[in-house]
Amino acid sequence: MEKVNVIKVGGAVVEDASSLQTFLTQFASVEGLKVLVHGGGRSATAMAARLGIETKMLDGRRITDAPMLEVVTMVYGGLVNKNIVARMQAIGLDAIGLTGADLDSIRSDKRPSVPIDYGFAGDVRTVNGHALHTLLAAGFVPVMAPLTHDGQGQLLNTNADTIAAEVAKGLVPYYDVTLTFCFEKKGVLANPQDENSVIPRIDRASYDALVADGTLTGGMLPKIHNAFAALDAGVTRVVITSAANLNGGSEIFKNEE
Amino acid sequence: MEKVNVIKVGGAVVEDASSLQTFLTQFASVEGLKVLVHGGGRSATAMAARLGIETKMLDGRRITDAPMLEVVTMVYGGLVNKNIVARMQAIGLDAIGLTGADLDSIRSDKRPSVPIDYGFAGDVRTVNGHALHTLLAAGFVPVMAPLTHDGQGQLLNTNADTIAAEVAKGLVPYYDVTLTFCFEKKGVLANPQDENSVIPRIDRASYDALVADGTLTGGMLPKIHNAFAALDAGVTRVVITSAANLNGGSEIFKNEE
Repeated sequence: MEKVNVIKVGGAVVEDASSLQTFLTQFASVEGLKVLVHGGGRSATAMAARLGIETKMLDGRRITDAPMLEVVTMVYGGLVNKNIVARMQAIGLDAIGLTGADLDSIRSDKRPSVPIDYGFAGDVRTVNGHALHTLLAAGFVPVMAPLTHDGQGQLLNTNADTIAAEVAKGLVPYYDVTLTFCFEKKGVLANPQDENSVIPRIDRASYDALVADGTLTGGMLPKIHNAFAALDAGVTRVVITSAANLNGGSEIFKNEE
Repeated sequence: MEKVNVIKVGGAVVEDASSLQTFLTQFASVEGLKVLVHGGGRSATAMAARLGIETKMLDGRRITDAPMLEVVTMVYGGLVNKNIVARMQAIGLDAIGLTGADLDSIRSDKRPSVPIDYGFAGDVRTVNGHALHTLLAAGFVPVMAPLTHDGQGQLLNTNADTIAAEVAKGLVPYYDVTLTFCFEKKGVLANPQDENSVIPRIDRASYDALVADGTLTGGMLPKIHNAFAALDAGVTRVVITSAANLNGGSEIFKNEE
């Protein structure tokens, strides 16, 4: 089965011209088919401030009222996405920018307003793997902004990590899928003080051992939980790494049963 | 040869939710393959004003300095384009939003700064008809924002009428192309006072006669000149009509020689 890499990179990397350029050089070196999923929260917050719109976050999630939806639609779907696409084209990557509304690629449900009203936030319902497969098979590189739609004409704001995980799962029927999350560290560290103590491979058994001996704690646990959830949904492997270390990092994988 | 309709609609139609809905119902009724090209100047001007950025126009063209380029990238590529795409998906049109950077669909040259510096304005160099053909053949409806790129990573602002004409010409090797320009009137009027005096068909001979007898004057002349230029480049017919009259209007066509 052909391989595809779904790579998620945060806003901090793509919003700065110089770090974007460094990242794209790495991205170009990844072999085979690929999909980029990007954030853009800092730019959205900055643009909102320029427009006198207050950014409200709760548990790290943006509350997206109507004026904020306008901001994220402009910033994620326009400013950030189109700048990445233009930069990719300049280095020979045949990029095509998408939101979940384009080709109905990601449909979502507006999150219930109880107990917390996140406004126009979308929880993913379906990924149109067939449409993404059509683009990939044509040699295109989808570049996905963290926006979805409800199928009734309403755009919705959706977390970029979630988009990446759902796109990876949606491509399982068509490809052998690797899902890569870039964050600020080079991978899962055996020693948080030592940036170079990346644990190269983690499966369920070694994960349990690393938790038991106290090596893995805190914010890394939900990341790896989500990685195992993607593996359970048929993704072949999940990589946790930094944007500057795309060909390295920690591989999370499922052993054959 | 299969037919395709390239339809250009101005910002005033797509920026208002109600007129957009009316237009899209008409657009959906157009048979066969189609491409939508949209403007968005009013929204860009309004957003610029909210950001304290002054809009400068010269001969009806926007002067696009760096802050204005950011605004048009957000507004055309994000806000306007993605709202149209989401609305189209809601009525069953499998829309995909594009700027000229996406799939390298329209590459342009930054306009020389002498005699007038229009800033980041792009004059179209090449249209990637093959990429657009790939999308159309897959059953998708391209929705094109008036932005292009220079192939070196720079986005550029390009007039939507020009985008429509160039896309129409770029599709000539693949399709029998009809290019439709929507403006505020129902078509080319025999009597400017009578909104219903639409001249249904105009060829070069009847055009010359209409100019000679004083029926056609003023702003309509350059519109029809551009129509004949598109016909000379192989477009089969050009239609000048209103957004509410997509299946009517004035057909400009070239007689067989």
